[in-house]
Amino acid sequence: MCKKVISKAVIKRLPRYYRYLGELLEDGVERISSGELSERMKVTASQIRQDLNNFGGFGQQGYGYNVRYLHQEIGKILGLDRVHNMIIIGAGNLGQALANYTSFERSGFKTVGLFDVNPVLKGVTVRGIPIRMIDELPEFIKENQVEIATLTLPKSRATEMAELLVQNGIRAIWNFALTDLNLCLPKDVIVENVHLSESLMRLSYNLTSYEEAKKKK
Amino acid sequence: MCKKVISKAVIKRLPRYYRYLGELLEDGVERISSGELSERMKVTASQIRQDLNNFGGFGQQGYGYNVRYLHQEIGKILGLDRVHNMIIIGAGNLGQALANYTSFERSGFKTVGLFDVNPVLKGVTVRGIPIRMIDELPEFIKENQVEIATLTLPKSRATEMAELLVQNGIRAIWNFALTDLNLCLPKDVIVENVHLSESLMRLSYNLTSYEEAKKKK
Repeated sequence: MCKKVISKAVIKRLPRYYRYLGELLEDGVERISSGELSERMKVTASQIRQDLNNFGGFGQQGYGYNVRYLHQEIGKILGLDRVHNMIIIGAGNLGQALANYTSFERSGFKTVGLFDVNPVLKGVTVRGIPIRMIDELPEFIKENQVEIATLTLPKSRATEMAELLVQNGIRAIWNFALTDLNLCLPKDVIVENVHLSESLMRLSYNLTSYEEAKKKK
Repeated sequence: MCKKVISKAVIKRLPRYYRYLGELLEDGVERISSGELSERMKVTASQIRQDLNNFGGFGQQGYGYNVRYLHQEIGKILGLDRVHNMIIIGAGNLGQALANYTSFERSGFKTVGLFDVNPVLKGVTVRGIPIRMIDELPEFIKENQVEIATLTLPKSRATEMAELLVQNGIRAIWNFALTDLNLCLPKDVIVENVHLSESLMRLSYNLTSYEEAKKKK
């Protein structure tokens, strides 16, 4: 399969393709035309063809796409064909909620460790994973081939923690703390931010605009 | 203030402006130039000027932006100048984690109710909010001026629940279930999706591409 530079917009859509193809597989669908996939995903067929052409195009004229093959190839592109060991820093409600998401594990993201600063939590287990204290972190990362660190801790501690993680070899951070870590870390560290309150504000913006538009009618 | 049609990209950035301006206020900064704001946010100064001009432009040549005023005006645009009553459907780990986020409440998003189908959870309280059963939902929505419903329940129940909510007058859904609700609801219902596993897959994509690029060097 030939590799090209793929636009950010396409990459943003890939997980959605992967999800829909997974659902088709579950439904026993073996092949699908771009037209049918388009109807299901509410994306134009030409957009789908264009997106999937980025990966050498897995479709065949008159046959459509082989669902299993396409699902598998997109999975590879997303790095889902292997296990990524993950730790969660901050074992509060959100950290524990994420540790309990078994669906992440099914996609290859395996939570191998949970860390917190609160001594009361020491040794408490979540889905069999004991909560450890931060002083064990450097050794744990080394011994467990940890690739991804999830930050579910307060903003005030996030930057310092991210720096400690990077010093200990972490290259990928899934950040739930409400601060832009990208600004303080080396450029080759990959940060994916999930800023929940910004998402809520977009919802509120859309709700407010909708109500204002209704009033004017 | 005159209102124009604002692009999605600008709206996406607004919560981030709001957050940075809030931090400046906390630090006691009263005015700031687009240049300084640019440096802090790692966005070009011209982008900032262009974005903020969408709202009639709050800056003054030679003075810069009045931080408090700009924060307040962006807050109004985002609908943060009033309280939005919110309920959470699905009182598992994630639902409880969100109910415990006091920062949402500070932005005007008030969790007034928590619902679940599991009778074991009935009456359990989270931050003083009792978990209620779904049969109480229609009356609760009416009596509590609920605007936003947060869905933290399995994909298999999400669509049916969203339809029930809309029938009972909910216009805005904050959706954590891994399914695209937009596809099955009336067009004027506002859905903001937070698909956590898609975010994790983007992280994994970037990590995989980075490693492949490194190998080639």
